Amino acid sequence: MDQQRVIFVAGLGLIGGSLAATLKARRLPWHVRAADRRGSALEYALKRGIIDEVAPSLEAGAAGADVVVLAAPVRAIRKQLRSLAGVLAPGQVVTDVGSTKASIVAEAQAAFPAGVVFVGGHPVAGLEQSGVERAEAGLFEGQTCVLTPGPDTPAAAVQTISDLWQDVGAEVVLMEAAVHDRVFALISHLPHMVAYGLVRTLVADLSARELAMGGASLRDFTRVAQSPAHLWRDICLENREALLWALDQFAVQLQALRAAVAAGDEAEIEKLLRVAAEVRGKPWMP
Amino acid sequence: MDQQRVIFVAGLGLIGGSLAATLKARRLPWHVRAADRRGSALEYALKRGIIDEVAPSLEAGAAGADVVVLAAPVRAIRKQLRSLAGVLAPGQVVTDVGSTKASIVAEAQAAFPAGVVFVGGHPVAGLEQSGVERAEAGLFEGQTCVLTPGPDTPAAAVQTISDLWQDVGAEVVLMEAAVHDRVFALISHLPHMVAYGLVRTLVADLSARELAMGGASLRDFTRVAQSPAHLWRDICLENREALLWALDQFAVQLQALRAAVAAGDEAEIEKLLRVAAEVRGKPWMP
Repeated sequence: MDQQRVIFVAGLGLIGGSLAATLKARRLPWHVRAADRRGSALEYALKRGIIDEVAPSLEAGAAGADVVVLAAPVRAIRKQLRSLAGVLAPGQVVTDVGSTKASIVAEAQAAFPAGVVFVGGHPVAGLEQSGVERAEAGLFEGQTCVLTPGPDTPAAAVQTISDLWQDVGAEVVLMEAAVHDRVFALISHLPHMVAYGLVRTLVADLSARELAMGGASLRDFTRVAQSPAHLWRDICLENREALLWALDQFAVQLQALRAAVAAGDEAEIEKLLRVAAEVRGKPWMP
Repeated sequence: MDQQRVIFVAGLGLIGGSLAATLKARRLPWHVRAADRRGSALEYALKRGIIDEVAPSLEAGAAGADVVVLAAPVRAIRKQLRSLAGVLAPGQVVTDVGSTKASIVAEAQAAFPAGVVFVGGHPVAGLEQSGVERAEAGLFEGQTCVLTPGPDTPAAAVQTISDLWQDVGAEVVLMEAAVHDRVFALISHLPHMVAYGLVRTLVADLSARELAMGGASLRDFTRVAQSPAHLWRDICLENREALLWALDQFAVQLQALRAAVAAGDEAEIEKLLRVAAEVRGKPWMP
């Protein structure tokens, strides 16, 4: 039988809870310890066998753990990094689940003592729900988990974290933290901002009865705009530069469409719409 | 047994085909005649009992029909109106299925002889697919169909078209044509432009491998952007003023978000995101 190592999940929401739930459901050789500001989240998880042990505090939970997973919203992760700097010992491996990476990686490099390894991580899973009560074993099955080790990160630590995510079903992709942030500014953060902006536009100008006539396309936007505001506020702040860049790229494209419509330029409108329509059939488009 | 009246469906695509298919599947007392530029569409529909009769031309099909349904893309509907002006006789009722209404209603008023009644219509159903081969009985079940009669439209004609759509399962809503166009610029045309613009932004800046990491939110956008370019080109051109207005309203909202992110204004970002998130739970949001 494999010897159990200790994994400490700091923040038991949808992502941390689903990681814990999958480790236990698959009987993977980890002793799962967790901490959360919400006592009810810990009680819920303990009762359902999602975790093995409740830690009395962030610091106590991290002490002696083989792996520490910081699973709070992105700005809280940076606070966790600072709080843990004094209690971590060489040999411990710390990772996180934040949707932005460069600022978190920089904070870890600045805060951690020599020998404590940080491997930035981002399991790509829906942020439209939240809370351990929505956690499920299998959430990461077939999903991507991006890891952002630096050039000096020890390979063994990267392997440990990579194995962890692969064991819960994710496909691991390695990227530079800065590249990660630009890519996700485009494929995730920008679409969310657009959805929020669109729903705000509609609510400002339409009656309830008019809004109710919206079809499937509108339903998709309103679903995305329902994502928890506090999580996305943090993502906006942590990935500010890349997000502003993405918003500007989008503004250029929308302005081109607007200009073609304003000019009544039939051929140009169709060209702009057709390119977008055609890429959808590509095997690499989600 | 009800006496069969003749309905002529001019343009047998997804919408016209689904209307015909539902009339036949529900054994409603209509003799369904159709015309289409694609001979293969007519053959397909005749073979499957979606229509009763193929008309040799638009003009021949309209002659003597109790109800004429113009079911082409929106700009082709305007051409159909002009072509039919000479062959229609008093007592015939003409309607359409176009996603824009003011320009079509104006064209009908200008072109039609006295006694021929036009009732603008817009069954709200997905335009992400096209072709009679995708048509289905039941497509309109539970969907809205907007009718836009003018102040002088005879009530009996409005009732005929209203009954037609209710008989195939739609809920009929009456609106002024100009109001319809502004409402749908916001709830339908704007979301499509935004989705097209977003997909263009991503394709311009990302590799295939990076795009493939997109999650559910991106999938929704790419699905909407797959809508047939030629249909949406026409909608852009026909509803130009309202669409430009909607694009400008959206730009204001997105600019507010961008400014809050650029300023790092935590409270303002959260306020902007929270309002959008909160409306989703409303019973009147789709």
